[in-house]
Amino acid sequence: MSTIISPEGSLEILSQQEVNRLHRTSQTGLHDLLRRCALAVLNCGNPTDDSVALLEAYKDFDIEVLQQDRGIRLKLTNAPADAFVDGRMIRGIREHLSSILRDIVYVYNEIQHHNRFDLTTGEGTTNAVFHILRKAGALKPGRDPSLVVCWGGHSISREEYEYTKDVGYHLGLRDLDICTGCGPGAMKGPMKGANVAHAKQRRKEGRYLGVSEPGIIAAEAPNPIVNELVVMPDIEKRLEAFVRLGHGIIVFPGGVGTAEEILYLLGILLHPGNQDISYPLVFTGPESAKEYFEKIDEFLVYTLGEEIRRYYTIITGDPVSVARTMREGIDRVAESRRERQDAFYFHWRLNIAREFQAPFEPTHEAMRALALHRNQPTHELAANLRRAFSGIVAGNVKEQGIRAIEAHGPFVLTAEPELMRRLDELLTSFVAQGRMKLDGQPYTPCYVLK
Amino acid sequence: MSTIISPEGSLEILSQQEVNRLHRTSQTGLHDLLRRCALAVLNCGNPTDDSVALLEAYKDFDIEVLQQDRGIRLKLTNAPADAFVDGRMIRGIREHLSSILRDIVYVYNEIQHHNRFDLTTGEGTTNAVFHILRKAGALKPGRDPSLVVCWGGHSISREEYEYTKDVGYHLGLRDLDICTGCGPGAMKGPMKGANVAHAKQRRKEGRYLGVSEPGIIAAEAPNPIVNELVVMPDIEKRLEAFVRLGHGIIVFPGGVGTAEEILYLLGILLHPGNQDISYPLVFTGPESAKEYFEKIDEFLVYTLGEEIRRYYTIITGDPVSVARTMREGIDRVAESRRERQDAFYFHWRLNIAREFQAPFEPTHEAMRALALHRNQPTHELAANLRRAFSGIVAGNVKEQGIRAIEAHGPFVLTAEPELMRRLDELLTSFVAQGRMKLDGQPYTPCYVLK
Amino acid sequence: MSTIISPEGSLEILSQQEVNRLHRTSQTGLHDLLRRCALAVLNCGNPTDDSVALLEAYKDFDIEVLQQDRGIRLKLTNAPADAFVDGRMIRGIREHLSSILRDIVYVYNEIQHHNRFDLTTGEGTTNAVFHILRKAGALKPGRDPSLVVCWGGHSISREEYEYTKDVGYHLGLRDLDICTGCGPGAMKGPMKGANVAHAKQRRKEGRYLGVSEPGIIAAEAPNPIVNELVVMPDIEKRLEAFVRLGHGIIVFPGGVGTAEEILYLLGILLHPGNQDISYPLVFTGPESAKEYFEKIDEFLVYTLGEEIRRYYTIITGDPVSVARTMREGIDRVAESRRERQDAFYFHWRLNIAREFQAPFEPTHEAMRALALHRNQPTHELAANLRRAFSGIVAGNVKEQGIRAIEAHGPFVLTAEPELMRRLDELLTSFVAQGRMKLDGQPYTPCYVLK
Amino acid sequence: MSTIISPEGSLEILSQQEVNRLHRTSQTGLHDLLRRCALAVLNCGNPTDDSVALLEAYKDFDIEVLQQDRGIRLKLTNAPADAFVDGRMIRGIREHLSSILRDIVYVYNEIQHHNRFDLTTGEGTTNAVFHILRKAGALKPGRDPSLVVCWGGHSISREEYEYTKDVGYHLGLRDLDICTGCGPGAMKGPMKGANVAHAKQRRKEGRYLGVSEPGIIAAEAPNPIVNELVVMPDIEKRLEAFVRLGHGIIVFPGGVGTAEEILYLLGILLHPGNQDISYPLVFTGPESAKEYFEKIDEFLVYTLGEEIRRYYTIITGDPVSVARTMREGIDRVAESRRERQDAFYFHWRLNIAREFQAPFEPTHEAMRALALHRNQPTHELAANLRRAFSGIVAGNVKEQGIRAIEAHGPFVLTAEPELMRRLDELLTSFVAQGRMKLDGQPYTPCYVLK
Repeated sequence: MSTIISPEGSLEILSQQEVNRLHRTSQTGLHDLLRRCALAVLNCGNPTDDSVALLEAYKDFDIEVLQQDRGIRLKLTNAPADAFVDGRMIRGIREHLSSILRDIVYVYNEIQHHNRFDLTTGEGTTNAVFHILRKAGALKPGRDPSLVVCWGGHSISREEYEYTKDVGYHLGLRDLDICTGCGPGAMKGPMKGANVAHAKQRRKEGRYLGVSEPGIIAAEAPNPIVNELVVMPDIEKRLEAFVRLGHGIIVFPGGVGTAEEILYLLGILLHPGNQDISYPLVFTGPESAKEYFEKIDEFLVYTLGEEIRRYYTIITGDPVSVARTMREGIDRVAESRRERQDAFYFHWRLNIAREFQAPFEPTHEAMRALALHRNQPTHELAANLRRAFSGIVAGNVKEQGIRAIEAHGPFVLTAEPELMRRLDELLTSFVAQGRMKLDGQPYTPCYVLK
Repeated sequence: MSTIISPEGSLEILSQQEVNRLHRTSQTGLHDLLRRCALAVLNCGNPTDDSVALLEAYKDFDIEVLQQDRGIRLKLTNAPADAFVDGRMIRGIREHLSSILRDIVYVYNEIQHHNRFDLTTGEGTTNAVFHILRKAGALKPGRDPSLVVCWGGHSISREEYEYTKDVGYHLGLRDLDICTGCGPGAMKGPMKGANVAHAKQRRKEGRYLGVSEPGIIAAEAPNPIVNELVVMPDIEKRLEAFVRLGHGIIVFPGGVGTAEEILYLLGILLHPGNQDISYPLVFTGPESAKEYFEKIDEFLVYTLGEEIRRYYTIITGDPVSVARTMREGIDRVAESRRERQDAFYFHWRLNIAREFQAPFEPTHEAMRALALHRNQPTHELAANLRRAFSGIVAGNVKEQGIRAIEAHGPFVLTAEPELMRRLDELLTSFVAQGRMKLDGQPYTPCYVLK
Repeated sequence: MSTIISPEGSLEILSQQEVNRLHRTSQTGLHDLLRRCALAVLNCGNPTDDSVALLEAYKDFDIEVLQQDRGIRLKLTNAPADAFVDGRMIRGIREHLSSILRDIVYVYNEIQHHNRFDLTTGEGTTNAVFHILRKAGALKPGRDPSLVVCWGGHSISREEYEYTKDVGYHLGLRDLDICTGCGPGAMKGPMKGANVAHAKQRRKEGRYLGVSEPGIIAAEAPNPIVNELVVMPDIEKRLEAFVRLGHGIIVFPGGVGTAEEILYLLGILLHPGNQDISYPLVFTGPESAKEYFEKIDEFLVYTLGEEIRRYYTIITGDPVSVARTMREGIDRVAESRRERQDAFYFHWRLNIAREFQAPFEPTHEAMRALALHRNQPTHELAANLRRAFSGIVAGNVKEQGIRAIEAHGPFVLTAEPELMRRLDELLTSFVAQGRMKLDGQPYTPCYVLK
Repeated sequence: MSTIISPEGSLEILSQQEVNRLHRTSQTGLHDLLRRCALAVLNCGNPTDDSVALLEAYKDFDIEVLQQDRGIRLKLTNAPADAFVDGRMIRGIREHLSSILRDIVYVYNEIQHHNRFDLTTGEGTTNAVFHILRKAGALKPGRDPSLVVCWGGHSISREEYEYTKDVGYHLGLRDLDICTGCGPGAMKGPMKGANVAHAKQRRKEGRYLGVSEPGIIAAEAPNPIVNELVVMPDIEKRLEAFVRLGHGIIVFPGGVGTAEEILYLLGILLHPGNQDISYPLVFTGPESAKEYFEKIDEFLVYTLGEEIRRYYTIITGDPVSVARTMREGIDRVAESRRERQDAFYFHWRLNIAREFQAPFEPTHEAMRALALHRNQPTHELAANLRRAFSGIVAGNVKEQGIRAIEAHGPFVLTAEPELMRRLDELLTSFVAQGRMKLDGQPYTPCYVLK
């Protein structure tokens, strides 16, 4: 498909300079970034999590920004046909293109080009996250706390998927909104369920917020139900966006990505400065996922200590109970923020230690150097485990990671023996349960434990 | 649950007289009618098609209309808990209560109390249908033709149900709206599918129109996704509402109710005055329904003649093709109405013969007296077959019908031998396929063929 | 100007029967009524209060109702050019045409054709008023009391006009809405003032409600700022609409029409059944109107007794104080209705005696027969004085009245001597102050006092 | 009045850093700037153009920004009572406070603190103007050209004021919007007139855009009808905003400020790169202003040459003709932009020479140094005359200017003799006509011509 479309929704009017920077011949790499993200968004109807394969398949796809009388137009060449219905692009996808353009212009133009924020400090980094989200309209003043972040695998069973829909449905009936990382599986189910419930409750302004980043968007393309899309510049800012935007978090079964997210959140909640923070957190899945969560629980207790259990509740096979727990937890969040005059829309008060903010570049070297032993403070171990999982995600689905593994073989991780054993067990179970990749092919690990 | 709620949406402000007439002690039977319809609407979360059982189960349910400073309130006593989420009534259901109240007040107060229309004539009847729909806000001027009426069974297989959702999804992607008779199965699937598609297309004003009548509403309670509900006074006016509102019709697999609807529509399209009417009609189901539609097709050709085939298209296993056929057909409808300056929102020009408008009371006597033979004009045979099917529906699921069968045994139908054989075959196949009742119990026919 | 327009706003979709009844060749007189009302509305830019002259001036004006694909269209022939801006009709006027059509169809079709209400009884009459207003959308549930009815002359001085604007402005700043009888002068000023204030308060849903009737509409054409227009069938139902809709009333200086309104309202408030009704009523004008209101006050005290003063407050030269008094009074109305569970949108509890409801036909005979003496209960004298003033209004500006005076000479009124003297003084002062007619010509009274 | 209010409308959510910078104790001067602008906005009900006097009168006024659960709140201490109605702040004024806060944060924080734009170049300056307007939401994509910039005096006669209202009314009837510099007189009249017309046309999204700057806002406080307010950082960027936003310009009678604006615009239109630009420009006033415009015309022809006349049309005493001319001119603008794929919302293609962009600081020295003779290119003379008028405006109404005149006596301007004579005549006529200051006191010139 080749066509010219008007982006819809959150696209800013662009200045001539901004349009020029996005142009094909641009030296800045911006055009290439735009092209890759746009392709991911357009490909949403055809799930794959292999970004390299996607780029190969649409080698001759291109996108160009035009300036016209009523605003910006996008000229697409050889776009995936799935984005269109009888030749007309699905409106939700047009909005996603608009969001991508907005975030690329803002992040890669304003923030990076002008060194607007000091990203070497915690305050500067948080400020950057705040500004990106504000620009994206994701901070909504005057709205009661209602945003449930749902984490979980993109490659899950039909039963688990139906369960995530069911939980979403019961959240939606209680006027809760959904935020996920985009993509299929546990990132899509809750939104679909909530969408039905919101229709029944006539909640016309229901939010289905997707938070992505350029490395992950191709592997986890936003479903068009996502009605707000933000592309954060890197994985750490994306995680920070989740925890500062969300009023509660639900974790569904998943693979290494989900494990990364759990370690990230618990590492932060363990921060001494966060002891009085109210943050509802539920691990849930169908009855069949009981054992899965027991394994996670064991691993967490081993690595982070017994008291870690007070931060989460495990509920299996009971979507109504999950939804009620979340609703009550979020009502407590509202109360607590009101008392302290905290903003509902951005959780300023949450302390995030530097090791959770600094971008981790998963080179072979960096992966090998990770200190994975219990001879360090728990939040540091949490941070290192988070990095290890993050690297494996990259090796599985990200363009750069895949290419690195192709070139240099699997990442090597070393850990103290018992932790090594437990980590191996956990990862092996993810593989066995098919949680590593979408396509259902036998999985070749991108890592070895030594 | 006992509570006081504000009805939402289309409820008119009521005059003191109107409120008084609805009161408990009312001699008019209006209060009882309101109570039964309200119970059906409130019970939507708990599917049954046995209206007698429903009334038994909620013997002590009551509803009262109160007048307050800001308008009408409804006081509910012992209402089904399914209508509530954590003690708060689902907004869609509040709207349905409001719609029911509106239609009961208007139809049973204005039209019947004041003999506003001459219901013994075709013109008067059509005028009454028009006024009820207008009052309900179901006639939307200024909107392009987009309303697809979906007919089909309320008791269908999972596979068929998923198929109806899929068709609804592809209709919704093409900016088409859904009208059904309310209830589960083929009446709910297309709306759910269209709802997802409309979310993707950001079609905030998507219509999910349910057209019911007091006898059927308990058996086919409106799902809360229905965002416009109209309760017509009887089955014939409900059918007339379908064919004058809709811009195209899709028939999914179903039982006698669906057969009734098919005969009704074809009987009308055969009217000589309707020869130049453009009315897209598709019979569709999953691949597995192929044989089902072949049987229907054979029966129609036998009873109404070979040329009946030019009125419908049979498509199996191809939702996209169904949706495209409907979109194109409706575009032709728009064009044709524009040329003739016909209203988009009400199909005045369609001729409906008196035998399709006059209410049929399915007593044992009336059923036995039906002339079921080919020795009459096809449209008359169509009308009589329609009545036969209508009676069986009543015997299956309507309060009055069930009680009559309990008292006097099954209806007796007589027909010419070959037609009898084919009718028997058709009905037997409905029974065998479980299309007669929801509950899955062995089905005891409410009729005998002699 | 000849053109085809789409009416906008409240126009109902019409049935074929309704369209047919409005047609040119109609025997029912409906078409003529529609034509006269439409002409009045279209002529709003060119103030006259002489309905006969208006009809003469646009002898060849015509209006026709057409049915088209998207709804009703109106075909206008030789319409006044003032309704158009560069060939396009002002949108407010299109809405007024739509309102007129709606009310004529409803009132003269439904109510009169079907004897829907027993207009010989108080309850039936009030019910008819309720239904007309409900149909017009003038009853707004869920809205706090805010409607200030403004009465006063259509022919007032510039100073008085500016004062009415000023009062409207201060009402508008306090989130109050305006209802008047349409037309220029005191009926337009408060709306214009409130419109500016509502702009400053960003009150997008401000109401400027005009209540007219077919006899008066030509003389007091609705200004296009009026954003809700209702045409009541006769003068008594129009007055009843004012007092049941309004939450408070302001009387500006005026002539006989204003006197009629004052007598009507006070006659009702004097009803023993209304003793506990809270109804804020302020007489106000610029400082220069002080003497005017003293005269009115004297006349009222003479005719209705000293205690009449407790029903109204006279404020001159202080718009802010008027607005505050009204705001506080309306807050008390809200409180009182809330306590008694009365509707905010229609004052059911107000008792209106039959003599204030029954239409008064001002023939020469009827006018001569009016009992104008103090030898009767005050509310009966109020009723008769109201009728006398009503007849003079008809003789001044209504088509039928003007033609009757032309044919038979002035009305003859008789009264007891002192009342006669005071009445003469009052009427003479109206003439002297130019309050009788718009055009500023020397006024020939349409009455003699004998 | 001391109170806490929520700003409404365009206020951004603020980051903690942004809130901190606005705090009382701030070293940046931001708090003082916010305080002065806020005071101007709050004082709108009480017209003065003396910013020094205003600051004196409200010495103890203060404003503080608070962060709360639902967003920002403003704490006001000793605010002018005129901004409130019965203790509640007028909503339009709350919106203006929000706009001011937004612009101060953005302009003085982002742009100035981060050197985001190179303000020493034309491109950088235009880019800054674009970004400020975009941030303010003043660039509306998808909207047809409709913005008429109205210039003219803030101190004009009643007759002239009524005329500006009348012109605004006829513009509004033609779906045109108004942009002015805020303040009373010719800046307020067109908005009030358009507001009435938009009410009649039911144009709910009518724009009343005020463009101010910190130096002028106290003297020309935005009327609450202004529903979009932008505070540009200096006078030159404000002028650039006018000419790049507007689709046509109307000049009413005025004083030196108006003369400055005329010279600015004509100086730009004379630029060789703008020869093919379509820019409707009308000078208009009541019949009595005929001589006034003849004088202006003469002065322009003398200084800029005969051909200058082709850039403007002079119309007196005919508001309908002004509105038609503007409507037609703007239709041509739309056509021309469409052809060239220019944005409707920002006139990128207009060339503005550096001498019209560089801020002019009207010190005594700078004023004395201005080259006012015809021995230079016309656009340079235009630029210098613009500066001279700008300096006089500062001396009349701006805090800094008034204080400079107080300290050092009047500005001295020198010019070639004939130009001096004509300039003197022009300025003298402004004084004679009372166009210099609002208060009507005898005017002491802040300049001498030598």
